Amino acid sequence: MTKIIMRGCNGKMGQVITELLKEDENAKIVAGIDINHAIKNDYPVFTSLKECNISADVIIDFASSKGFDDLIDYANEKKTPIVLCTTGLSEEQIILAQETSKNVAVLKSANMSLGINTLMKLLQAATQVLVDGGFDIEIVEKHHNQKLDAPSGTALALADSINEVLNNEYAYQYDRSKELAKREKKEIGISAVRGGTIVGEHEVIFAGTDEVIEFKHTAYSKAIFAKGAIQAAKFLAGKEPGMYDMSHVIG
Amino acid sequence: MTKIIMRGCNGKMGQVITELLKEDENAKIVAGIDINHAIKNDYPVFTSLKECNISADVIIDFASSKGFDDLIDYANEKKTPIVLCTTGLSEEQIILAQETSKNVAVLKSANMSLGINTLMKLLQAATQVLVDGGFDIEIVEKHHNQKLDAPSGTALALADSINEVLNNEYAYQYDRSKELAKREKKEIGISAVRGGTIVGEHEVIFAGTDEVIEFKHTAYSKAIFAKGAIQAAKFLAGKEPGMYDMSHVIG
Amino acid sequence: MTKIIMRGCNGKMGQVITELLKEDENAKIVAGIDINHAIKNDYPVFTSLKECNISADVIIDFASSKGFDDLIDYANEKKTPIVLCTTGLSEEQIILAQETSKNVAVLKSANMSLGINTLMKLLQAATQVLVDGGFDIEIVEKHHNQKLDAPSGTALALADSINEVLNNEYAYQYDRSKELAKREKKEIGISAVRGGTIVGEHEVIFAGTDEVIEFKHTAYSKAIFAKGAIQAAKFLAGKEPGMYDMSHVIG
Amino acid sequence: MTKIIMRGCNGKMGQVITELLKEDENAKIVAGIDINHAIKNDYPVFTSLKECNISADVIIDFASSKGFDDLIDYANEKKTPIVLCTTGLSEEQIILAQETSKNVAVLKSANMSLGINTLMKLLQAATQVLVDGGFDIEIVEKHHNQKLDAPSGTALALADSINEVLNNEYAYQYDRSKELAKREKKEIGISAVRGGTIVGEHEVIFAGTDEVIEFKHTAYSKAIFAKGAIQAAKFLAGKEPGMYDMSHVIG
Repeated sequence: MTKIIMRGCNGKMGQVITELLKEDENAKIVAGIDINHAIKNDYPVFTSLKECNISADVIIDFASSKGFDDLIDYANEKKTPIVLCTTGLSEEQIILAQETSKNVAVLKSANMSLGINTLMKLLQAATQVLVDGGFDIEIVEKHHNQKLDAPSGTALALADSINEVLNNEYAYQYDRSKELAKREKKEIGISAVRGGTIVGEHEVIFAGTDEVIEFKHTAYSKAIFAKGAIQAAKFLAGKEPGMYDMSHVIG
Repeated sequence: MTKIIMRGCNGKMGQVITELLKEDENAKIVAGIDINHAIKNDYPVFTSLKECNISADVIIDFASSKGFDDLIDYANEKKTPIVLCTTGLSEEQIILAQETSKNVAVLKSANMSLGINTLMKLLQAATQVLVDGGFDIEIVEKHHNQKLDAPSGTALALADSINEVLNNEYAYQYDRSKELAKREKKEIGISAVRGGTIVGEHEVIFAGTDEVIEFKHTAYSKAIFAKGAIQAAKFLAGKEPGMYDMSHVIG
Repeated sequence: MTKIIMRGCNGKMGQVITELLKEDENAKIVAGIDINHAIKNDYPVFTSLKECNISADVIIDFASSKGFDDLIDYANEKKTPIVLCTTGLSEEQIILAQETSKNVAVLKSANMSLGINTLMKLLQAATQVLVDGGFDIEIVEKHHNQKLDAPSGTALALADSINEVLNNEYAYQYDRSKELAKREKKEIGISAVRGGTIVGEHEVIFAGTDEVIEFKHTAYSKAIFAKGAIQAAKFLAGKEPGMYDMSHVIG
Repeated sequence: MTKIIMRGCNGKMGQVITELLKEDENAKIVAGIDINHAIKNDYPVFTSLKECNISADVIIDFASSKGFDDLIDYANEKKTPIVLCTTGLSEEQIILAQETSKNVAVLKSANMSLGINTLMKLLQAATQVLVDGGFDIEIVEKHHNQKLDAPSGTALALADSINEVLNNEYAYQYDRSKELAKREKKEIGISAVRGGTIVGEHEVIFAGTDEVIEFKHTAYSKAIFAKGAIQAAKFLAGKEPGMYDMSHVIG
C-alpha cells in the first residue's frame, strides 16, 4: 500500500485524485495539504507541509508554485519522493527540483497521461524510418477557447521528442500565411485550433507520397492526468534519487 | 448533346476532361484550343480561339491567363457561355469577365468540385443556429508540400461563405503563437497543414460546450474538378447572360 | 421565467439539469419528482406526480418508464406540456404519448442534443444532391464498452432521416464479413465501435468518385442532452397541443 | 544496380513499377513477363518465365496466380529471389512458396506499403502497455464500393499482429447488431466501410478511460504498393534463402 501526501488536495485535480484513490487497493492518501479547508476529506488536511507530522512514501504535488520551498524542504528532510504535476514553475524552482533529485526521486512530465506518453515513445520509434521514407511531419492540436497559450505544452513536447531523433535540425512553423513559398523539408508545422470546451486533442501527421499516417490522442476529461499521477506515485515510491519522467513509468 | 470547346485541352485538366467526356452521352468536345499540339485528340485543336471556326454551346477554360482577351472576344462575338476554371486571373481580367457576363453567361468558382460546393451551402445553413448555440468556428486545411499559398483559396472561400451569414463580422486568425490570450469570440481560426502529396482536405469545426461538429471534405484526385467543370458546362449551355457559380449548378 | 417540473430529479440527468438551471435566468425548477429522496435540492421533491400540488409550464421527464401513467394523467389534467427524454418506453406507452399530444404539447426525440439535431437537418438537405452525384452513404458510431445496444438509437435516427429523403428505399447493412460481394447501391452501412468510456461519436460518410464528405458529431459529456432538454422545455411552454421533436426547437 | 524481372509487367501495378523505375538509379527492369504484349516497354517482354533467357537479381511478381509453377521453377533453378505481391494464391501455392524459401529468398506481405508496415510494428510495441492500461482495441477500415472482401486483408493482418502480442487470446467481432450485450474485454471489433473510390484507409483505435489513441493510415493511390515492392526487391537481392516480409525491409 503506497502512502501518499496530496499537496493541493482541495483543488480540482486533488479532488479527482482523492475520488480515484477511494477505490484503489494499492495506494491511499494519508494526509492532504491545502490552504483551503472548506472540503471535508477522509484524511487530515494541513495548511502547509511544515505543519504536517505524518510521513508517507511519496508526495503528489498539484498545488500552485507557492509553498514550493516547503515542499522541497520536506522532501529533502524526510527523503520523500515527489511527483511534480504543478505547472508554471519558475526557472529557479525547476533548478531547485533538479538539485533535490540528487537526494530523492523527483518525477516531472509535460503531460501526465498514459496515452500521451505512450504516443511520445512510439513517435520516437517511428520518426527515423518515416523521415527516411520521405514523409513530412505536422502537428495539429485542439483545445478549449479559454486556453491562453498556443501551441500547447504537450504539442511542443511531442515536437521536441520527434526533433530529438532528428538531431534537433527541424524548425517549428506556426504560420504559413505570411509568404508564398513551398514547405521547407526540415520543418514541423504546428497548428493550434481553439474552440468550445475541447479538453485536448493532439494529432501528429506523417505525410508521404500517396500515403499519410496519423497518430491522434483525444482526452475526454482531466481525470487522465489524475490517473497518470497516481501511476507515477506508485512507481516512484522507494525509487533511487534522480530525475524521472512518465517514460520511466510506462516502461 | 452539349457541344464544348475545351480551352487548354492538352494541359493536365484538359486531358482529364477529354477522357471523362469520351464516355459521356450528353456532352462532347467539338474543338480544342492549345499552343501545345503534341497530343493527338479525337477533335481538332487550334492554337488560338481566333483561328477556331467551329461553334459550340459552351467553352470550358482551363488554360493560363494568356490569350484571355481572345477568349472574351470569342464569347462576346459568338454568344458562347464560358466556364472559367483558370486561376491566377488579374483584377482587370476578372472585371472584364464580369462585364462580359452582361452579354453571355459566365461561371466562376473558387473550387469546382460538387462536394466542396455542397459543403459550402450546408455550412451557410448551419452557421447561424450553431453560432447562436455558442459554437466557435475553426478551419483546418491540408495540402501537398509543393503548394505555394496558405491558407488555400478554398479554405478562404469556405470562411467567406460562413462569414457572409455572420455579417462579415468575424476576423480570420492564422497564428495564435504570438501572444498569450484567450480566443476572441468573433474569429475564425484557419490552419494550413502541408505535407507529402495530399491532394486537398478541408475541415470546418464547430466547437461548442461539450460537443463538436465537424464537416470534412477530402479530395483524392484532381478529377473531381474536371467532373465539376463538365457539370457546369452542361448547366451553363443555353443560360441567360449573368455571373454564375457552382452553387447555381448544384441547385 | 419558464417553470419546470423535473421528473427524475435525483437521477444523473436530473441533477445535471438542476445544476444548469441554477444559473439560468429564464427557467427554473419549481418541483422535482423522484422515488429517491437522498439528495437535497432547492425545490420540493415529491415521490409521484399524483402527490404534486405545484403547477408548472412544462415537465421534463428523465425518469424510468415506471410511473408513466401518472405523468400522462397529470399532463392531461393540468394541461402541462411534456418533454419526453425517457428511453425504453413500450409501444403502448408511445401510443399513449401520441394520444396525449392531441390534448397537450408533447416533445420526443431520439437524441436531445442541439448538435445532433442540427446535423440531422443538414443531412436531409445534403442527401439528395450527393446521392444524385453518385455518392454512397455510410455511418460509423462509437460508444463506451458498457453500452448494450448496437447500433445506437442516434445512428439509426440519422439513417432514418437520410432514408426518408430517399423514399425509404435504402437497406441498412450491419455486417459485410458474411459474403464476398460488392456493395449494393441502395444500402447504408452502419458500423458500431465500442471501447473505453467514449460518450458518443457519430460520423456520416458520403463517399463519391475521388472525393469524400464526412459529417461528424462528438459528444464530450451527457450535459449536452441536459442542455437540449432545457431548450426544449423553454420552447414547449405555451405551445399548442401536438407532437414535436428537436427539429422544431432548432427552427 | 539491382536487376529485376517484372512478372505481370503490362498489368496496372507492373506499369506503375515500370514508370517508377525509369527514374531510379539503383534498380532497373531487365525483362518483363506478360501474356499481354500490347504495351511497348524499354525492356524485352516474354510470355512466360520458361521462355525468359535473361538473368536477374530478383523477380517482382504482380501477375495472377496462373503460371505460378513456372515462377517457382525459374526461382529454384536460377536461384533468383522472389517478391511475391500476387494475391489470391491457393493454399497449395502458399505451401509451395514456403518450400521454395528453403532454396531461395521469398518475400510475402499482406500489404506492401512502407506506411502500413511501419504502423504494424508500432502497434505491436503499443499493444501491451495500452491493454495493461485498460484500453480496448477496435479497427475501422474503409475501401471503395467495388471491393469484394470485408474486412480487408490488411485489417486482418493488423488485427493478427496485435493479437500475436496478446497470445492470440482476442476474438474478432464483425457485427454487434445481433444481440444486446456489453463488449467483451478480449475482443477486437473490426468494421468495414465501403463507398465511392476510397483507395484504402485503416484506423486502429485504442479506447481507454477518458482517453483515446488512434493510429490511421490513408492510401491515396496504388503507387505506394509499387514503391514498397521496389524497396523489397532491392532488399531481397543477394539475401540468404528464407521467408521474409516487409518488417524485415523496414528494419
